Amino acid sequence: MTARQATLRDVAQLTGFHVSTVSRVLRGDAARISPETIASVEAAAADVGYRVNRWAASLRSGRTGIVGVLVPRITDIVLATVFEAIQREAAGHGIQAVVNSTWDVIDDRNARIENYRAERVDGLIVADARLVDPYLRGLYDEGFPLVLVSRGSRGLPSVTGDDRTGGALAAAHLVDRGCRRLAVLAGPSYATTAAHRSAGFRAEAARRGVPVDTTFVVHSGFDVAGGRQGMTELLTRGRPDGVFAVNDFSAIGAMGVLRERGLAVGEDIAVVGYNDMPISAELSVPLSSVRVDLEQMGVAAFAALNEVLGGRQASSTRLRPVLMPRASSGSTATS
Amino acid sequence: MTARQATLRDVAQLTGFHVSTVSRVLRGDAARISPETIASVEAAAADVGYRVNRWAASLRSGRTGIVGVLVPRITDIVLATVFEAIQREAAGHGIQAVVNSTWDVIDDRNARIENYRAERVDGLIVADARLVDPYLRGLYDEGFPLVLVSRGSRGLPSVTGDDRTGGALAAAHLVDRGCRRLAVLAGPSYATTAAHRSAGFRAEAARRGVPVDTTFVVHSGFDVAGGRQGMTELLTRGRPDGVFAVNDFSAIGAMGVLRERGLAVGEDIAVVGYNDMPISAELSVPLSSVRVDLEQMGVAAFAALNEVLGGRQASSTRLRPVLMPRASSGSTATS
Repeated sequence: MTARQATLRDVAQLTGFHVSTVSRVLRGDAARISPETIASVEAAAADVGYRVNRWAASLRSGRTGIVGVLVPRITDIVLATVFEAIQREAAGHGIQAVVNSTWDVIDDRNARIENYRAERVDGLIVADARLVDPYLRGLYDEGFPLVLVSRGSRGLPSVTGDDRTGGALAAAHLVDRGCRRLAVLAGPSYATTAAHRSAGFRAEAARRGVPVDTTFVVHSGFDVAGGRQGMTELLTRGRPDGVFAVNDFSAIGAMGVLRERGLAVGEDIAVVGYNDMPISAELSVPLSSVRVDLEQMGVAAFAALNEVLGGRQASSTRLRPVLMPRASSGSTATS
Repeated sequence: MTARQATLRDVAQLTGFHVSTVSRVLRGDAARISPETIASVEAAAADVGYRVNRWAASLRSGRTGIVGVLVPRITDIVLATVFEAIQREAAGHGIQAVVNSTWDVIDDRNARIENYRAERVDGLIVADARLVDPYLRGLYDEGFPLVLVSRGSRGLPSVTGDDRTGGALAAAHLVDRGCRRLAVLAGPSYATTAAHRSAGFRAEAARRGVPVDTTFVVHSGFDVAGGRQGMTELLTRGRPDGVFAVNDFSAIGAMGVLRERGLAVGEDIAVVGYNDMPISAELSVPLSSVRVDLEQMGVAAFAALNEVLGGRQASSTRLRPVLMPRASSGSTATS
């Protein structure tokens, strides 16, 4: 590989000094090395185009300048948007953010965290925390720099949307539109996003005199397939007139099923999703959705981790959601 | 930061040896250090929970075990899918794949590549190459391990779809469906994906006796907004009966405009997209699309880079596309 990039060995050969001397000079650890030697090594390094090795530099600072990010799937535009904002913020602080998908499998995630630690990341931002998460709790108690994003977990600092309020906005909207048989595609119960959106929806619906029948609450995956499956199950239990899906992908899957059954979304049945993905407004039947500022979520998550890295305490932040009413819930407003 | 993670300094204090000695032992560079010292340092390191630093280990091997990936936007599910496959393959070889979005801005990308090199990545996989790309060409000529994915560039090894064939499949399908006024939402001309899909489409349409009028070829962005803008522009030039958009996002944007104009997609006008994103089949009017195996693309891209890292030559690969006909082009087949 020396053919490709100049190495310490090249610099050593050129100067006649030992590799360990060259290495110490080039990573700035040059105590007890003469100024002449230093100058000679630096000149040779410049000649052969040797590049400063950032990993080596980290040996002295105790920092690698890398933070690890974990997301269920980087192919989910919601988490990709959050990650992109984290990465941009980190870059502004001279830090490289690295991301890995965990497929929401807790053992894989924990193994990946062990790898991140072996790679000596300075801290972690985790987007796939569980409601109760002893592993992350242990990491936090040990003092490892850690901030959760998107999903929270009891007792750990997090940057999330205010998911209860978001669910309540959806309920208020559907009740206002005249829906009286409300259903929830509630997502997986281990994620606070799903649990809080669903709980907020049900509390607000009940408060408005239209409680959700428990047979009309179905737990299924966050993706299109999960939405299809959940909606199919719901229709075996009865005929709701308003459906709240805890994310847009599952809302899209649900709408596919309704279309196949000959039900007109926005007329026969109202549908509201969550996250307001860019294409949600562009669907043939534009999807009503609860929007959270995902960019801001990423920015706030990095800021929180940066506090911890600076030796300070991170506090939890909840971002305010807004409802974007569209044709899927019979609204004529577009965005 | 010593409170959080044991450092070399902790080990030095515990053993009474100098930090540089401890550092040399722990990174395996222990020539001329006594076995007793080595044993004592290693025991102390284990006691305080000092973790082996992979970056430091790389100083000896000349490898960091990191490959850099560059994508226009990680929020684009197409590239995110390719990246996820690259990352999984790399992990299987003990290599960590790192990704950055470049927003398709060439100067930002080049600056990011400089950073990757300063970080001493072992190689690069680039998904935002230009048709003519002197910077990447220079990198390649210098012998830096480099493989392109998704988009190709003259003279550089790449793993792409067979975009000309994909475009031809779309043309054959629309002509077969009876379309006689064909239009192309051709995307940005600097990307081989857009250029080859568009060229393949036009060549096949002409071969079948239905050449595309040049006023019906509009260049616009790869996203929903680009599709909206392109379709709006097309409609000022005339009334096509078949539209080929070089990716699904722009097809979705185009369908939004058609819906607003009261045109029934799949009846008044046929639309075919490209990439076959998971939700494309779930739209209210399911979108006909050309599918490439994006997982396989990522797997092949890492395999090609791994060849180069092993000192071998990488050859270019083109993956075969298939057409998925759906309601947006009047097909009743679903997937």
